[in-house]
Amino acid sequence: MDSYLSDGLSAEAALLLDAAIASFSTLGYHGTTTRHLAKAVAKSPAAVYMHYESKHELLFQIIVRGHRALLELLAAAAASSDDPVAQLSAMAKTHAEFHARHVAVARVANYELHNLNPEASETVLKLRRQIADQVSDVIRRGATAGLFDVADGALAGTAILSMGIDVSRWYRDSGRLGPEQIGNAYAEFALRMVGYRNPGRHPYRTPRGGI
Amino acid sequence: MDSYLSDGLSAEAALLLDAAIASFSTLGYHGTTTRHLAKAVAKSPAAVYMHYESKHELLFQIIVRGHRALLELLAAAAASSDDPVAQLSAMAKTHAEFHARHVAVARVANYELHNLNPEASETVLKLRRQIADQVSDVIRRGATAGLFDVADGALAGTAILSMGIDVSRWYRDSGRLGPEQIGNAYAEFALRMVGYRNPGRHPYRTPRGGI
Repeated sequence: MDSYLSDGLSAEAALLLDAAIASFSTLGYHGTTTRHLAKAVAKSPAAVYMHYESKHELLFQIIVRGHRALLELLAAAAASSDDPVAQLSAMAKTHAEFHARHVAVARVANYELHNLNPEASETVLKLRRQIADQVSDVIRRGATAGLFDVADGALAGTAILSMGIDVSRWYRDSGRLGPEQIGNAYAEFALRMVGYRNPGRHPYRTPRGGI
Repeated sequence: MDSYLSDGLSAEAALLLDAAIASFSTLGYHGTTTRHLAKAVAKSPAAVYMHYESKHELLFQIIVRGHRALLELLAAAAASSDDPVAQLSAMAKTHAEFHARHVAVARVANYELHNLNPEASETVLKLRRQIADQVSDVIRRGATAGLFDVADGALAGTAILSMGIDVSRWYRDSGRLGPEQIGNAYAEFALRMVGYRNPGRHPYRTPRGGI
């Protein structure tokens, strides 16, 4: 399990979260029982309820921790420069790479989101709006500075996030491209989408190169 | 129900498919029972089995009919011109627009796909490969003709399809953009992603304009 997900959890609670990620991402939320999760970590069903009040709480913890981790990474990418070109490039790369590196968490976060109750759902949607706002803010600043030529920056931001999210649907570890190569390619796609006219090089042909 | 989905079905079978789309897209496949579907069309559970041998068969019919309809629309878009620029533009527009117009079917096709058995899944994945191949063929021809400047045309094709697929996740009829506006914007994003350097105008500002 990645530490960003298990932050503040006991070892047993972290193991359960891990088992829930594996099961929700393959069998689905409705296809998973707490009995099944207990068995996966060799505990009784009662042990699950010592750490999580319900299966729903497990789902919520996975989704909210996943989104918080992504939001932090994107904030760090945005903070890495004052230049909207470098910022958008870093954010698109980070976002796509995250979805390749954390396929199971991302699938749960996207495909099982509708199983959250309204209150939990609102918490997650608020994080999503923050993510979308971070991206569209950078695009707006780039457009204002004359670096980007884009008619609808908010829609471009949505499309950039969409292509990154969908990486978790098709990515396979055995595929021809790794997370970093995908991230570099998606950074260039993002700059092209917002009408940055001079990306020139293709960064994923030169692993150490930037844009 | 759209006729493309009910082709060749009796009125009752079409009603059941419609009820299944509504339920699978909101409650999920595992959250839906055949009893619930029968009730939605005011029939007995036995009536469901007169038309579909299982809940799985309903899921398969929705997904395979949805993919076939999309594939046909994309083939028509590709056949509308010999020019890779016009072809890619029409295909990206058609693809994004489809996902805005058929949100429920698209959600079932993407979020419940993993519930298909291996044989049914292979049938759908074959259709998906045909869709992906159609797009990457056009990109390859455009690159060969010097119209596009793209390092990895297959990956660009994947990303273009990704942003279209994800429209079905966020699209709302009450949103600020309609299906056609989204389609036009995504057509321009697609051309930009493949490095077509002269889209110039923003087609979704001029509803009747093309690229």
